Amino acid sequence: MDNVAAAPLLPEVREAMLPYLGEIFGNPQSLHNWGDGAREALEGAREQVAALIGGASEEIIFTSSGTEANNMAVKGIARSRAEKGKHIIVSSIEHFSVLNSARTMQREGFEVSLAPVDSTGTVVPDDLLKLVRPDTVLVSVTQASSEVGTIQPLAEIAAGLPKDGPVLHTDAVAGVGNIPVDVKKLGVQALSLAGNQFNGPRGSGALWVKRGVRLLPLMDGGIQEGGRRPGTEDLPAIAGLGKAAEIARRDLDVRMERMSGLRDMLIEGVLGKVEHSVLTGHPVNRLPGYASFCLRFIEGEAILMLLNSHGIAAASGSACTSRALKASHVLLAMGINHELAQGSVLFTLGPVNDAEDVKYVLEKLPEVVDRLRRMSPLYSKYLKEQKG
Amino acid sequence: MDNVAAAPLLPEVREAMLPYLGEIFGNPQSLHNWGDGAREALEGAREQVAALIGGASEEIIFTSSGTEANNMAVKGIARSRAEKGKHIIVSSIEHFSVLNSARTMQREGFEVSLAPVDSTGTVVPDDLLKLVRPDTVLVSVTQASSEVGTIQPLAEIAAGLPKDGPVLHTDAVAGVGNIPVDVKKLGVQALSLAGNQFNGPRGSGALWVKRGVRLLPLMDGGIQEGGRRPGTEDLPAIAGLGKAAEIARRDLDVRMERMSGLRDMLIEGVLGKVEHSVLTGHPVNRLPGYASFCLRFIEGEAILMLLNSHGIAAASGSACTSRALKASHVLLAMGINHELAQGSVLFTLGPVNDAEDVKYVLEKLPEVVDRLRRMSPLYSKYLKEQKG
Repeated sequence: MDNVAAAPLLPEVREAMLPYLGEIFGNPQSLHNWGDGAREALEGAREQVAALIGGASEEIIFTSSGTEANNMAVKGIARSRAEKGKHIIVSSIEHFSVLNSARTMQREGFEVSLAPVDSTGTVVPDDLLKLVRPDTVLVSVTQASSEVGTIQPLAEIAAGLPKDGPVLHTDAVAGVGNIPVDVKKLGVQALSLAGNQFNGPRGSGALWVKRGVRLLPLMDGGIQEGGRRPGTEDLPAIAGLGKAAEIARRDLDVRMERMSGLRDMLIEGVLGKVEHSVLTGHPVNRLPGYASFCLRFIEGEAILMLLNSHGIAAASGSACTSRALKASHVLLAMGINHELAQGSVLFTLGPVNDAEDVKYVLEKLPEVVDRLRRMSPLYSKYLKEQKG
Repeated sequence: MDNVAAAPLLPEVREAMLPYLGEIFGNPQSLHNWGDGAREALEGAREQVAALIGGASEEIIFTSSGTEANNMAVKGIARSRAEKGKHIIVSSIEHFSVLNSARTMQREGFEVSLAPVDSTGTVVPDDLLKLVRPDTVLVSVTQASSEVGTIQPLAEIAAGLPKDGPVLHTDAVAGVGNIPVDVKKLGVQALSLAGNQFNGPRGSGALWVKRGVRLLPLMDGGIQEGGRRPGTEDLPAIAGLGKAAEIARRDLDVRMERMSGLRDMLIEGVLGKVEHSVLTGHPVNRLPGYASFCLRFIEGEAILMLLNSHGIAAASGSACTSRALKASHVLLAMGINHELAQGSVLFTLGPVNDAEDVKYVLEKLPEVVDRLRRMSPLYSKYLKEQKG
């Protein structure tokens, strides 16, 4: 139940990739016929991805990951607009690929403001809009948090931004493929996505950039992707991303209903069965597959180990930082204290999961929590205080 | 015969990738067991790649392409050394991922010197070393040209650089897997390579950076690759790169002998059968699979089209720029004039090719050249002048 870190490829996605590991090996840039199949696959995938988010296919730039798309957006847009102004706003719950890209821009002379979130992990549009200045050239707010699943009020933020003001980028890596995403409805000018977040391949991502929005490339080199992202195109990954996008679009409603049902069953069960547990993130506006908690008197790493010994895969936060073992900046930004933030557990559901999985977690989790709390000095202290 | 742009995966490479598109889908960063297989694969591939180039496995950073490795090296090393000095030297025949990265650093306040090459496309060490200044922080010279195949005297350049002077990086994308490459013998501190240049997968590359050499990452994000290259690891591509490296190391001698034989047969045949043809690049110090020519009175694009109609895939230069249709900066740097440079044709051989292929090219190429020359006003003019 750690689908956000690692989910198996859908069989159809795998099938869509295999020809490009075999008979279709051409280079889309070649002037001879061997490039034709490759070129068709590249442009077909571009249309599939564009269709999923309501963009135009020529506005899609393929990247090697969501991280690359976020870096390209934040750095590329900021650098291209440096003459207009050097102020960036990002939310305080962004993924490190956005947050640290903004920090890199700080070293290049930009000022960065962090927009706060409320206790549900939601950016309050008015609070963000107050930070906008005449020299603000970029605002980047995630579409949905990859750690607590809270869906953000992007359309409201977009509506409140001054006309011809900052470019609005969204890291929609956690959302795209899992909830409806339409760039026009969101009102954004740039959007990042990643295939492995909706049962597509690793090594696949894309940045959608609205026509007319300038962007300095992150990398220099050949003329691929309209000169905006050089390097020989990774066709197996791109073809897989395209297929995953097509399937996500087709199955979105069914998948959302199924995932939300399992998620709510899991949330209700945990909150009911595990004392001192709190749901993190928004109670309603959350990604269908995201069940995230803080369990008091528990250390996230310890609980993952014990769950693992029962055959349950879970995470404590983003896989990109799991081995760093720090309290999550997202939870801290939501006002959760350090002690509670240490007990963060994140279950992310995917098409492979069913109600049996949820029931099994609900059976094992209380045991595991009990066992860990019996060893916790903080918990003993708490019990004594209660008695006293 | 355009293997440098596009070559089929070796069947063993494909087999090595398939498990990571199927049952092994874990995330190497996960704290639970599902990450174990992924982590082993990642570290196994790192050892295979390190072994191919004589480096240590912890010095390998996986990237999504040779282009990314080159960008990371040039920008990352220059930026990390900006306080020591702001002068960079690159050769004038570098791939655009190096050349344009250097130009980007120019916009960031660096000075860039271009080291000239002789008519064989070889950097003359003394000419380069004359450009070194106290504030030179980076020298980047390709190990072997991806356009004309000339192998560069890197060890000589390395030996001539001042101690504790500039970092020496080499773009070895065309060389690694095709000729012996040993970072110690070359005397470099950083080296880029790409899997698809030796029948490994697209979307796979690596930068080797000698321990102790600092590098600012190109991208910000998670803690993958020791914090130097964030983003969920693309395991199928990485596993494929590892396997391709293992095979290249095993088969290098046999492959080199076979490729050089075919190449020499092709070169001899073309020079013998096609009037006004010149070999570009070094006559001896060249990559085993590289047969590159300029054919006078001919336009590269036109010849590729006609060869294609006979079922022959060839290139006019780098696939990364083929659709830009400009005279190659590499050929111009070698002193070839614009007119002759337009007639550039590059055949790159791979394991799929055999003597029959070469014979077929030698049969068709003269016909194709004749046909094009009959339509060429320049050729008519030349013939008249000869008669006159």
